[in-house]
Amino acid sequence: MANSAVAAKLTELVKRFGGEIIGDDVEVTSIASLDSAEFGDLSFYTATKYSDKVASCKASALVVKQFNAKYACTQVVVKDPQLFVSRSLNVLFPRRKSCESRHPTCVIHNSADIDSSAEIGAYVVVESGSFVGPGTIIESGTVIGENVTIGSNCRIHPRVVIYSDCVIGDSTEIHSGAVIGSDGFGNAWNGKSWEKIQQIGKVIIGSNVEIGANTTIDRGALDDTIISDGVRLDNLIQIAHNVKIGAHTAMAGCAGVAGSTTIGANCLIGGGVLIAGHIEIANGITLLSGSGTPNSLTEPGVYASGVPTMPYSTWARNSMHYRRLDEMAKRIRKIEKNSVLSGMKQQGEENGTD
Amino acid sequence: MANSAVAAKLTELVKRFGGEIIGDDVEVTSIASLDSAEFGDLSFYTATKYSDKVASCKASALVVKQFNAKYACTQVVVKDPQLFVSRSLNVLFPRRKSCESRHPTCVIHNSADIDSSAEIGAYVVVESGSFVGPGTIIESGTVIGENVTIGSNCRIHPRVVIYSDCVIGDSTEIHSGAVIGSDGFGNAWNGKSWEKIQQIGKVIIGSNVEIGANTTIDRGALDDTIISDGVRLDNLIQIAHNVKIGAHTAMAGCAGVAGSTTIGANCLIGGGVLIAGHIEIANGITLLSGSGTPNSLTEPGVYASGVPTMPYSTWARNSMHYRRLDEMAKRIRKIEKNSVLSGMKQQGEENGTD
Amino acid sequence: MANSAVAAKLTELVKRFGGEIIGDDVEVTSIASLDSAEFGDLSFYTATKYSDKVASCKASALVVKQFNAKYACTQVVVKDPQLFVSRSLNVLFPRRKSCESRHPTCVIHNSADIDSSAEIGAYVVVESGSFVGPGTIIESGTVIGENVTIGSNCRIHPRVVIYSDCVIGDSTEIHSGAVIGSDGFGNAWNGKSWEKIQQIGKVIIGSNVEIGANTTIDRGALDDTIISDGVRLDNLIQIAHNVKIGAHTAMAGCAGVAGSTTIGANCLIGGGVLIAGHIEIANGITLLSGSGTPNSLTEPGVYASGVPTMPYSTWARNSMHYRRLDEMAKRIRKIEKNSVLSGMKQQGEENGTD
Repeated sequence: MANSAVAAKLTELVKRFGGEIIGDDVEVTSIASLDSAEFGDLSFYTATKYSDKVASCKASALVVKQFNAKYACTQVVVKDPQLFVSRSLNVLFPRRKSCESRHPTCVIHNSADIDSSAEIGAYVVVESGSFVGPGTIIESGTVIGENVTIGSNCRIHPRVVIYSDCVIGDSTEIHSGAVIGSDGFGNAWNGKSWEKIQQIGKVIIGSNVEIGANTTIDRGALDDTIISDGVRLDNLIQIAHNVKIGAHTAMAGCAGVAGSTTIGANCLIGGGVLIAGHIEIANGITLLSGSGTPNSLTEPGVYASGVPTMPYSTWARNSMHYRRLDEMAKRIRKIEKNSVLSGMKQQGEENGTD
Repeated sequence: MANSAVAAKLTELVKRFGGEIIGDDVEVTSIASLDSAEFGDLSFYTATKYSDKVASCKASALVVKQFNAKYACTQVVVKDPQLFVSRSLNVLFPRRKSCESRHPTCVIHNSADIDSSAEIGAYVVVESGSFVGPGTIIESGTVIGENVTIGSNCRIHPRVVIYSDCVIGDSTEIHSGAVIGSDGFGNAWNGKSWEKIQQIGKVIIGSNVEIGANTTIDRGALDDTIISDGVRLDNLIQIAHNVKIGAHTAMAGCAGVAGSTTIGANCLIGGGVLIAGHIEIANGITLLSGSGTPNSLTEPGVYASGVPTMPYSTWARNSMHYRRLDEMAKRIRKIEKNSVLSGMKQQGEENGTD
Repeated sequence: MANSAVAAKLTELVKRFGGEIIGDDVEVTSIASLDSAEFGDLSFYTATKYSDKVASCKASALVVKQFNAKYACTQVVVKDPQLFVSRSLNVLFPRRKSCESRHPTCVIHNSADIDSSAEIGAYVVVESGSFVGPGTIIESGTVIGENVTIGSNCRIHPRVVIYSDCVIGDSTEIHSGAVIGSDGFGNAWNGKSWEKIQQIGKVIIGSNVEIGANTTIDRGALDDTIISDGVRLDNLIQIAHNVKIGAHTAMAGCAGVAGSTTIGANCLIGGGVLIAGHIEIANGITLLSGSGTPNSLTEPGVYASGVPTMPYSTWARNSMHYRRLDEMAKRIRKIEKNSVLSGMKQQGEENGTD
């Protein structure tokens, strides 16, 4: 288990985050899963049904939605165990703060404006005209282009690249390998070959955003690519030029959004989801993993697509029909017509009107 | 709007790129979308139908396919607005040229041959025997392995890695995070475990190619992986060992091509398309986004696949049938047979031959 | 063809790896494909049927499964040509060994413990408390966080990032751009916005593992993400937090595994396969490329899914039916019922019991 830098009493956590303690107050030094918890750990259980796994958990205390007398340890009853645990993690494992230092090896253009309380790691490059705000941490090997603006209390992990002119808000975290502001995929065909269309827009990322490892967000062609406040992007996501993502939308790994599409606020986009370009996804839409979305979706709700995995022989037998369904539908229609006709005929016979 | 380094008169642009000016000649300082354009901007419209959005656009001049008297500003009538705008962007925003300098922190092996007009950025590493041609820009943090050849006027963005022996042509651009020449996925099973098969081929990339951020192109197992002249690869694309991509083929983000597949020239491969290994995709094929392509395609044309997104409940009801289509087809066939038989029987009765 | 550093006689290779030489012993300097082989090369053929391509191959010797008198050159008959060739490649092209050196530009925390026989490249950063074992090579620009343990004889290619606390075994190879230990995608919704859930687990990677370029493996939320011995991960793969991958499982490029899923040993996961979270994939399962796997699979075997590519017009006609199959099934059932009824009716008439 990860050692925490800080221990905390349950009463302290409950005072800050709400909840009711049933049992002795204990001091916890870490948070652990039900399987791994040991004495001194806090664990949690998000369902309400009795669980043997919970009963045999060795944690000193348990965060639960509902008290259950069968569990021996101290219970902290809360509305939302996940939220309580998340906030407790921040107490037990305080977030890394800026060391307010610049590594001697960082290369910072003399016109760049780096707040004195920022932390700049080894081999970081910051080009001309850029700004880095108070409390922000830029870790080793990151390259920040010209005229980039990064707000306060951001954490940029090692080896991120931010191309020129991009704007990042406050308290935003970007994981290693992410590339912000690379050229959008713009090419004009001249009859014989492609001519690159320069991309003179930029990327604007809001505050309280988290961007995963190796995720790529392209700069706009003319207008900007916009990632609103509170957005969560997982790893290996591709955001094409001029995409706009609304506030608090979360996208899981390997998803991709093609150019000029607008995704609303509070959407949940599953892993590997592909969203076509030049469409609109309304607020509050959930796209389950594996969805391929070619057209705008205007109604909030949950959407899905895809062919679930099946044994190979079953798939081999069935996949040939994926291109014969139109024909199958016609054959059914024909059968239905004929049976109507023959039903009418039979009816006619019975009525003596044939 | 991005400031342009250079302003230009419409007459100058038309003189270079063709077209007809209807209205006053104006000097433009930037190019903008219809929504964002302001005085001094050039905007464009690629359709021909009258559009309110165009009529209310505030640009000083508009590039159009067809003149429309209802639009107040100067119009530049051209065959291909996108191409005209693309070329005008290069005039207003001249491409970055090599500073013909080497950052003091770059580490260049003494056997590497870097043209004096090349630009090498901070913390760039160039290993033994490599060659970098005239006018090429290698930006911060890029690592170039041994015996790599990079031609003239290339632009390699920050933090690219090019493994040993790879060859890159002229005027090719590679975006941040791309990895060129990593080992192909080669493993031999020895009955108990995998033994890595060393990949002794390399990657050969032609001229006027653009490769997107975080795209990976593996070296060949024995022969080489080949990306022909004029190819456009978007971000987060995987090109496996021994793939060959023909001239001017464009692939959108998140696509993947498995080993030893040959893709022809002038293909358009949509985002997220997966192409199986050891197959051939002929010239001039378009694979729409979301296509999974397991077999060779020999006829030029447009291909598609996938199950479009639908409301979850609809998908849940229907997806169970994706593995029952073969059975459904058999039931239809049985019904058809029976109705033929009963039709024959009925006919027989009518004919008195039953 | 790649020059080999070492030449070898067939007798020497056969002495080490088994097989029977039919024809003269030759000295080979390289290994090449059938198409490209020249004098002095060894080539190979894994099928048994006679092949013109083999007959016209110019290699000095051929590794085959079965002798064929029609082939002129020396033949080396072995059970498994691929394995023989793989092992011969290692003789002809000896794996790069550690130079047992530290580049003057590397930044190593004074509490980091780097074995004297390890090789640390230019601009490598190793943070406090980390350990790098004997013979391990860490190439340029890689960043190793705090308290990381890397075993012996590993090869970490340029520009990898390993976040704090991660553990890597022996003889493991990680390709450029890979990110190990980035935060898992953990967020708790507080009613208005997401609150980040700190990820206090780590990544544990075993021995003899190979991880492809730009692949991302997230650290666990509380427990660890585990990649067992002998696993092979290709490029651009996403492994979410708390995934466990069993020994010797191989995953092809662009695959993605969502959080807390367990994949067994000896699985073969095809390119682009998406595996849902919180499920179990048993040992010995093959998931063909393009499979979307939402539920646990408990039986060893081969699984597939997806809609294969077809001409666009065919797909357009058919794809509308992917959401009407349930309705289609009902219509078939209705037809079948009616024909049973009318058959009974007809039978009744014939029997005089209607």
